[in-house]
Amino acid sequence: MNSDLAIARAATLQPIQVIADKLGIPASAVEPYGRTKAKIGLDFIASLEDRPDAPLVLVTGINPTPAGEGKTTTTVGLGDALNRIGRRAAICLREPSLGPSFGMKGGAAGGGHAQVVPMDQINLHFTGDFHAITAANNLLAAMVDNSIYWGNPLDIDERRISWRRCMDMNDRALRSIVASLGGVANGFPREDGFDITVASEVMAVFCLSRNLHDLEARLGRMVVAQTRDGANVTAADLKADGAMAVLLKDAIAPNLVQTLEGSPALVHGGPFANIAHGCNSVMATRLGLKLADVVVTEAGFGADLGGEKFLDIKCRSAGLKPSCAVVVATVRALKMHGGVERHQLGAENVEAVRHGVANLQRHVENLQKFGLPVVVAVNHFTSDTAAEFAAIRDAMAALGTEAISCTHWAHGGAGAEDLAHAVVRRIEAGTAAYKPIYPLDMTLADKIRAIAREIYRAYDIALPDAVAAKLESFEAAGFGEVPVCIAKTQYSFTADPTIMGAPVGHVLPVREVRLSAGAGFVVAICGDIMTMPGLPRVPAAESICLREDGAIEGLF
Amino acid sequence: MNSDLAIARAATLQPIQVIADKLGIPASAVEPYGRTKAKIGLDFIASLEDRPDAPLVLVTGINPTPAGEGKTTTTVGLGDALNRIGRRAAICLREPSLGPSFGMKGGAAGGGHAQVVPMDQINLHFTGDFHAITAANNLLAAMVDNSIYWGNPLDIDERRISWRRCMDMNDRALRSIVASLGGVANGFPREDGFDITVASEVMAVFCLSRNLHDLEARLGRMVVAQTRDGANVTAADLKADGAMAVLLKDAIAPNLVQTLEGSPALVHGGPFANIAHGCNSVMATRLGLKLADVVVTEAGFGADLGGEKFLDIKCRSAGLKPSCAVVVATVRALKMHGGVERHQLGAENVEAVRHGVANLQRHVENLQKFGLPVVVAVNHFTSDTAAEFAAIRDAMAALGTEAISCTHWAHGGAGAEDLAHAVVRRIEAGTAAYKPIYPLDMTLADKIRAIAREIYRAYDIALPDAVAAKLESFEAAGFGEVPVCIAKTQYSFTADPTIMGAPVGHVLPVREVRLSAGAGFVVAICGDIMTMPGLPRVPAAESICLREDGAIEGLF
Repeated sequence: MNSDLAIARAATLQPIQVIADKLGIPASAVEPYGRTKAKIGLDFIASLEDRPDAPLVLVTGINPTPAGEGKTTTTVGLGDALNRIGRRAAICLREPSLGPSFGMKGGAAGGGHAQVVPMDQINLHFTGDFHAITAANNLLAAMVDNSIYWGNPLDIDERRISWRRCMDMNDRALRSIVASLGGVANGFPREDGFDITVASEVMAVFCLSRNLHDLEARLGRMVVAQTRDGANVTAADLKADGAMAVLLKDAIAPNLVQTLEGSPALVHGGPFANIAHGCNSVMATRLGLKLADVVVTEAGFGADLGGEKFLDIKCRSAGLKPSCAVVVATVRALKMHGGVERHQLGAENVEAVRHGVANLQRHVENLQKFGLPVVVAVNHFTSDTAAEFAAIRDAMAALGTEAISCTHWAHGGAGAEDLAHAVVRRIEAGTAAYKPIYPLDMTLADKIRAIAREIYRAYDIALPDAVAAKLESFEAAGFGEVPVCIAKTQYSFTADPTIMGAPVGHVLPVREVRLSAGAGFVVAICGDIMTMPGLPRVPAAESICLREDGAIEGLF
Repeated sequence: MNSDLAIARAATLQPIQVIADKLGIPASAVEPYGRTKAKIGLDFIASLEDRPDAPLVLVTGINPTPAGEGKTTTTVGLGDALNRIGRRAAICLREPSLGPSFGMKGGAAGGGHAQVVPMDQINLHFTGDFHAITAANNLLAAMVDNSIYWGNPLDIDERRISWRRCMDMNDRALRSIVASLGGVANGFPREDGFDITVASEVMAVFCLSRNLHDLEARLGRMVVAQTRDGANVTAADLKADGAMAVLLKDAIAPNLVQTLEGSPALVHGGPFANIAHGCNSVMATRLGLKLADVVVTEAGFGADLGGEKFLDIKCRSAGLKPSCAVVVATVRALKMHGGVERHQLGAENVEAVRHGVANLQRHVENLQKFGLPVVVAVNHFTSDTAAEFAAIRDAMAALGTEAISCTHWAHGGAGAEDLAHAVVRRIEAGTAAYKPIYPLDMTLADKIRAIAREIYRAYDIALPDAVAAKLESFEAAGFGEVPVCIAKTQYSFTADPTIMGAPVGHVLPVREVRLSAGAGFVVAICGDIMTMPGLPRVPAAESICLREDGAIEGLF
């Protein structure tokens, strides 16, 4: 088997207008970025407003393990398979961040014969959306300090600036800094820090906005600091919202690319699911729903993180009603959840699968709580045995759920046709009755508790007094009725990344809370999760270079 | 008269392939970014290597004043005029930085009827080149700190890290920071800081590289720190060069756009001329020279800064031999150099022009020292009188130089035809005998002194012992034979921005020196110049927003 990059490079891509034609997008609405990437014009998107929405399928997963699950790969494979069986499907994915590309080896454009292409470009700068988001975020930051420097007319309390700078990079050195050192000309020294761009509120606002004007309004509502009297200072108070919207006006148009099989894919926006809300843009998803017969979208990491936030935040905010959820698992990953070490994954171990399937079961039950029918996609590895698969299938049958073995990694869409048929059956049965897991009129603390109990099966949350007080201050300022966005490790239902399987009775420690008034949620940072990752001992960047012919070597 | 943006928006742009056809660039070599921007393929560029070079014209200026000179505008007008009189001209400009766009009002794409378009896109993210440069710079920075974090195998002395982070933003708060605070997980605290991207060595390397492989080799040579034994640590030692080249591989391809009159313009790379070397990319200039009958290029700020560095650094490094220099001046600016206050510029004042023309004279004499014939372009304002222009014309005649009145701002290329004819006459006379102002085998201190004396007419330089010792350490490490890149205020021949006209007998204070081993020069920072600007009291960003129809309001 070739590498993902070798397979992607060997593919013959179709001109992007051919892909646009499949969704009925006219050439006048296609702004090319090279020959195989394009942005779709906002006027065209606005003209579709009155069309009905197609069914929406969420692809999510178990808690990830080093064994690999293949969620994006399955999303792409399912989209290709739906097109193969005669359903005009659009795939909606997030854009990759540069951070992981140069940190831990691995891109975010699928794999094997189920990829979106041009994968190298998608994994690098793509159409520049993340850079635009970074620039908008940091323009606001510069304007905060600049306002203080020039006499502080808004009476900002330098100790109460919540707006952080950002960078699309894994750079632990920037997590916590002191800025404005060096004397009078450089301003007033204060503590500051950078988050990775995918964790920024601008990214969240970008992904939750319904159009350019909604974007500008949300940017204006973002709270950056408090005054000495405790009043909130917003981006609009700083008159930064207009310039930020200008920086984002091209980026907000969804990106169109293709899969290796020529299925249309809208790849747009990219908040991480562990430290942010984890879903692609509302603009792209809604565009797909207007143009396709069915839309397949992915939420990041496990169903406890990206899935929960897709359903409680994105769907609620954008008025989306998904028809079906697909949970991706692998035999190997379930063995790891069942206690098997990584180097022993090659040997059959039905008992470990039976043990580890508890993780999958819980995610399926959770999605059922949201009112969704669920199909389980078992992403096939050659070492899997029939008995191991049967253990999964039987456990799922007990929950009223089908488990389907898929080979799209090796065979492309043809390997996911069974999955596609199962998904179509679920859609056509019309049993979905989507509802969020918590109502908006609870206290913020109770909303965090509801997710911890209903989804993570925690006994309770641990809320330090200072954090509780901050939540109450958000409520007092009128932000009590928003959903909560949990930031925590993706590896466990708990906040401890080493606890696999399906733990119960744990306590979710809430370390810090941040108001995202423009995005319309409160972020609750739980456990040791970092909003700025670091590079590993041997970063992937060290083995990335250019070949003599100018092609990329070592990326993914 | 409409605003620049209104004029630009009213223009009907030609498809970019039509512009490419004018230079004989085949469709296969044109990578579209939207309909009116493109990158030119590297393979096509490599195929032109054996073609002869067209004549090269440098457009430079007097020391800028708040009255405005219009150097980019004149570069565009001259290019349009050359095309009008039957010479196939290509225009080579730098890309604008976001910093000034949101700081002091004003873009960098020309003005009036002499602009490159789409000006709003060129002034914003354009094709993403600066973002790619920023990412490459900051990846290297992250890898420096990461190497130290993971046991410091290269024995980097944390006190001797010279590599700074960068951002394409005016943000004084980031000039001087302490990073890696917050405990063990965040690394070892150390002093650090950000420069604006246009001041970074990656930008210089980007602009001086002849091809992708030269770029990767230069990136690898960049010195980022010293070990505890005093040995230099390079980007190659950190294995960062390959990944940086991958981040830059699309960006390094020159960008093609058009003027309002449809002349081809290569807009690529953009170091500032006060804090960096101030010229567009060698790749773009050389591409133009292979394709056009004549290439018009601009160097930033006055001829003492961008012009000197174009001739001493870029031309020497890239083997370019310019045929003619154009110095841009305005009656209003020369009046300011002659001591007139800004609010009195509307009244005729021949005496002030005669006094202020000394600034122009000196720039002309300086360019003649480089062996170049000079034409002076007087960018016409309606308040200019015939007597004022005559004062300039007579002073220039005494230097053997023509002064031509130009009205391209109001009339486009038609307003610069006289200038175009004058330039053609100079080219065809074949009198240019380009030579740098100093040889490379002087000491670094003597090279700085040579520029100070020959170009700035300083009495001497002031070199603190610590700075002198650093220059000697660069020489000891084998970097003595490189040119020097002076960073100083653009407003004066001296390092004091308030001293206008043509001062003599001053001393140039060298504050700091930095080795740019990949770019191949040593930067000498003189006076109070900052490598990270700040925003003004009322940043332009405050009045930038989107109109109801999605168009940009208030930018430029």
